[in-house]
Amino acid sequence: MEPPKRSRTATRARLLAGALEVFAERGFAGASVEDICDQAGFTRGAFYSNFGSKDELVLALFQATTDRLLEQIEALLPDLATQPGTLLDAVLGLLDEAIGDQRQWHLISTEFTLHALRNPEAARALNEQRAMFRASLTRLVEEISAASDVTFSVPPELFVRLIIALHEGARSQSLLEPTKVPAGSLEHAFLPIVLDAVSQPSH
Amino acid sequence: MEPPKRSRTATRARLLAGALEVFAERGFAGASVEDICDQAGFTRGAFYSNFGSKDELVLALFQATTDRLLEQIEALLPDLATQPGTLLDAVLGLLDEAIGDQRQWHLISTEFTLHALRNPEAARALNEQRAMFRASLTRLVEEISAASDVTFSVPPELFVRLIIALHEGARSQSLLEPTKVPAGSLEHAFLPIVLDAVSQPSH
Repeated sequence: MEPPKRSRTATRARLLAGALEVFAERGFAGASVEDICDQAGFTRGAFYSNFGSKDELVLALFQATTDRLLEQIEALLPDLATQPGTLLDAVLGLLDEAIGDQRQWHLISTEFTLHALRNPEAARALNEQRAMFRASLTRLVEEISAASDVTFSVPPELFVRLIIALHEGARSQSLLEPTKVPAGSLEHAFLPIVLDAVSQPSH
Repeated sequence: MEPPKRSRTATRARLLAGALEVFAERGFAGASVEDICDQAGFTRGAFYSNFGSKDELVLALFQATTDRLLEQIEALLPDLATQPGTLLDAVLGLLDEAIGDQRQWHLISTEFTLHALRNPEAARALNEQRAMFRASLTRLVEEISAASDVTFSVPPELFVRLIIALHEGARSQSLLEPTKVPAGSLEHAFLPIVLDAVSQPSH
């Protein structure tokens, strides 16, 4: 049974990659399942045996992206425990690395968020996905603060929400004005200030 | 010549209000000039004698919204000079007040930003409009810091970019999860921390 499974994984991966291209260029609303199949070189049958809908495919894209990001952050944990000061730089660096094409990712993730604001079912699914990502990131922040004997004067979950809000807002400015606001520059300028202000030695 | 001018202003205002409704419900790409005219009760002729294109109308909406916001902030200036500590609360309060329907405004402004990321001419016009808004806000921050004898360890323009990035990113979370992230809560939790950390007495 191995070959069919490998092939199914490969089909999903090619559909996800094709969808990312198509969505980025035509927008979430403007891209049809046919467009995605054409781009990836599959039939509609192949699409629907992998995803129930366009929404489900986007959520799978989000999941794949956040899984990759969390995996890379976790790989850094052993180093971070001995060098806690580098936490933010490492996380911010990964945000850029794990997401290859920031413009493409911004277009599709922002567009799906707008879709969710008009569609309660999509909002529910997106919120669930985002909550899982925040929970993983919060656990990492807690592990690192424990390893470095630091406590926060704000709930770690709120600090994670700040990182996400600032990153998403800053990315919009960076994409509109790449030379004036290099990717990550607002995060690098302000997150260390906040982290320092809310950190206290545990003992 | 007064009545025609008043009437022209009223026509523009009704077209702007109609467009806000139509864009919020159908999206920027999905809304046609006809839809906007139907909503506002005007002909296409009336539309094109006021706006060269849909893009131009959205930029006029941005201008009207930011003008209203800056006007309200400026009205507060005399009080702020004597009570500098209330600056952020006042500005954050106005962001909510000046923009009546946050959801509607988020949908249209985010959608036009995505449009600009695919269209260099729209990007140029949007960047110009955003630069003017940032310049006005930066001047206000500088006036207030001078009046309260405080200097910043970061350029005021960068602090303004932070406020905008955090506000835009936080608004997305607030609209997706209104009860978990009340409007303005991330800004209120973190901007005073940053302001305090970057402020130094002038003498």
